Amino acid sequence: MTPPCDTPRHHALTMTPPHQSLLDLPTPCALLDEAQMLRNIARMQSRMNALGVAFRPHVKTSKCVTVAKAQRDAGALGITVSTLLEAEQFYAAGFDDILYAVCISPNKIDHALNLRKRGCKLQILVDSVEAVQALVARADAWGTSLPVLIEIDVDGHRSGVQPGSGALIDIGNALRAGGLEMRGVMTHAGSSYDCADTPALLRVAEQERALCVQAAKRLRAAGLPCPVVSVGSTPTALSASGLDGVTEVRAGVYVFFDLVMAGVGVCSPQEIALSVLGTVIGHQPDKGRVIVDAGWMALSRDRGTREQSADQGYGVLCDAHGNVLDGWWVSGANQEHGICTWRGVGAAPDVAQRFPLGTRLRILPNHACATAAQHGHYAVLRDGAVAAQWARFNGW
Amino acid sequence: MTPPCDTPRHHALTMTPPHQSLLDLPTPCALLDEAQMLRNIARMQSRMNALGVAFRPHVKTSKCVTVAKAQRDAGALGITVSTLLEAEQFYAAGFDDILYAVCISPNKIDHALNLRKRGCKLQILVDSVEAVQALVARADAWGTSLPVLIEIDVDGHRSGVQPGSGALIDIGNALRAGGLEMRGVMTHAGSSYDCADTPALLRVAEQERALCVQAAKRLRAAGLPCPVVSVGSTPTALSASGLDGVTEVRAGVYVFFDLVMAGVGVCSPQEIALSVLGTVIGHQPDKGRVIVDAGWMALSRDRGTREQSADQGYGVLCDAHGNVLDGWWVSGANQEHGICTWRGVGAAPDVAQRFPLGTRLRILPNHACATAAQHGHYAVLRDGAVAAQWARFNGW
Repeated sequence: MTPPCDTPRHHALTMTPPHQSLLDLPTPCALLDEAQMLRNIARMQSRMNALGVAFRPHVKTSKCVTVAKAQRDAGALGITVSTLLEAEQFYAAGFDDILYAVCISPNKIDHALNLRKRGCKLQILVDSVEAVQALVARADAWGTSLPVLIEIDVDGHRSGVQPGSGALIDIGNALRAGGLEMRGVMTHAGSSYDCADTPALLRVAEQERALCVQAAKRLRAAGLPCPVVSVGSTPTALSASGLDGVTEVRAGVYVFFDLVMAGVGVCSPQEIALSVLGTVIGHQPDKGRVIVDAGWMALSRDRGTREQSADQGYGVLCDAHGNVLDGWWVSGANQEHGICTWRGVGAAPDVAQRFPLGTRLRILPNHACATAAQHGHYAVLRDGAVAAQWARFNGW
Repeated sequence: MTPPCDTPRHHALTMTPPHQSLLDLPTPCALLDEAQMLRNIARMQSRMNALGVAFRPHVKTSKCVTVAKAQRDAGALGITVSTLLEAEQFYAAGFDDILYAVCISPNKIDHALNLRKRGCKLQILVDSVEAVQALVARADAWGTSLPVLIEIDVDGHRSGVQPGSGALIDIGNALRAGGLEMRGVMTHAGSSYDCADTPALLRVAEQERALCVQAAKRLRAAGLPCPVVSVGSTPTALSASGLDGVTEVRAGVYVFFDLVMAGVGVCSPQEIALSVLGTVIGHQPDKGRVIVDAGWMALSRDRGTREQSADQGYGVLCDAHGNVLDGWWVSGANQEHGICTWRGVGAAPDVAQRFPLGTRLRILPNHACATAAQHGHYAVLRDGAVAAQWARFNGW
């Protein structure tokens, strides 16, 4: 216990002394195991190096400059962002090779052109002739333009044009007619998140590669330039057996990993670098419940494992050192209450005895991108102690 | 379109000129219809006045000082918070009568006592003798203490002690023995969110009232003081036919309302004051999909309507003026993509013609507390224009 003082306790949030004990952290908070994160980064980068492709990590997972610098130090070339605020923040932090990987809407073109005008090598995405026309109109007004990639739909998951469609060539021709730089094609095999075994992962990874390369070949056959062929998702990047014709891979969540990725089969729970630290605030002994101060506000409402073979509720319980507590999970959540219950073999333990009031517990998240977004910073663990606090940002 | 300039577009986020057009807002963003919010506040307060109880709104929904001031102006007495950061922020803004309605854990006691020491009339919650013992130990160290309420479990929903239990009296006796102020009992009928019709709402509201009053009577019969009997949830507060024995009601989400509350039957979709403004960024004509720039990051992952009779996906689509577009919903969401589809009667319209690229749309949320938490501010609509920007905060 800290002694009484006149400084409100929550000020600790904005200033963490180095090598603080984990027990001194306010709860709930996001914990980041730095060594595990660095192993995850090294694993992905060495795979990309072996496959002979450039790697452009998606920073939407961490929204943290320090994390992205670790990815760059390991060999990443450029970054991928999901919002123009990410582009702004990372450009301000010295990242200038940025792919904004969400199709641009007319109301964001001026902001993107402004970034370009200020020196950011921003690339943008389209999947319609209408978007190209809007870009051309604004490029004329600004006297500058942005390199453009065309989004390809390889699995009916979200957006993009079909690789064999007439629309693909129409967009390429519209870019050329408008004098815009046709940078290439990109896709994201979102369906890889639904995979449950290695054969399925190999199949989706090969489908992602083959269809994106097909789109590039059709553009080139139509006399249009297509230097970049960009594919990626964490499951396919970690599964692809070959990437012929691909020039660049993107992936985001691998940097932290999560229970969905463990369910897909590309990591183990022990490789998850992000967790939420909570404190036991009560018990319901007759129901076998332990109540912690990490509810859905700290964990997010993401229930990505719900459709997987092992539904992990709102997360898997670990002790304060990060050891998975087999049989314990967060079975329910209110805004600031996590409800932890036993689903292991045998009789439920006496919860008040097993987890006394005040016990610290860690919770592994369903989806690292969603859980991290509930927090303003990461408490960084190094050699078992809190060594740093890394800011992240949210919003648009 | 704004003319080219050297100011990055996202700076608009931090400074909104009065009476801006909705079309000038960056997207996605949280929209708040002020007139509707004031109607929601007036409706609840007049009900509480008619029932003869004090009303203590839960500010965890808005986490916005301006919203809480509107609740106070309407007649609210004190506020309820879900975190000590809320207590800090609202105390700094002039709210000093605060109930922290989550059972206190040992690691938060010093912070709570510090608030008390600085003049905040903070009340806290316990549901175990262990928590009382931790409080007594710290009160001795600080030379001051906090008034305490005991949480009562009225529906097996989450935490609290049974109204008929020996534990209730044990806690009361421990408070007296430790010299702490026994303020009363409180409960939250979380199960009211599962109601689907008026008889069920009436039943849960009466159960909440009766069991909490029973707990108070047992404490008094044991010679323990229990001046406060605090109950509440938005569904029960708007349904209770009488509140005999209750001194105070708490409710949070009514201030904005949402699709879950519409599903429960305590509001209509037209009464929902909070929405997310998005922009059309693409189409998948063959699949009948409209893609907007509001994904789960803007909407939250909350799928509270999933178990209701009308599953509303990630939200109901409205036009830019807030008129519900019957048959259109957000059927899926990625981090920054909302996938809108038709589920109405008859053939699906031509999506690219119906919603051209750049079209603004509003999305009504499943759960206002969760959706609002994804945003740093509210763009406030008054007479159809953006009249103000109200900050909210997140974190702990």
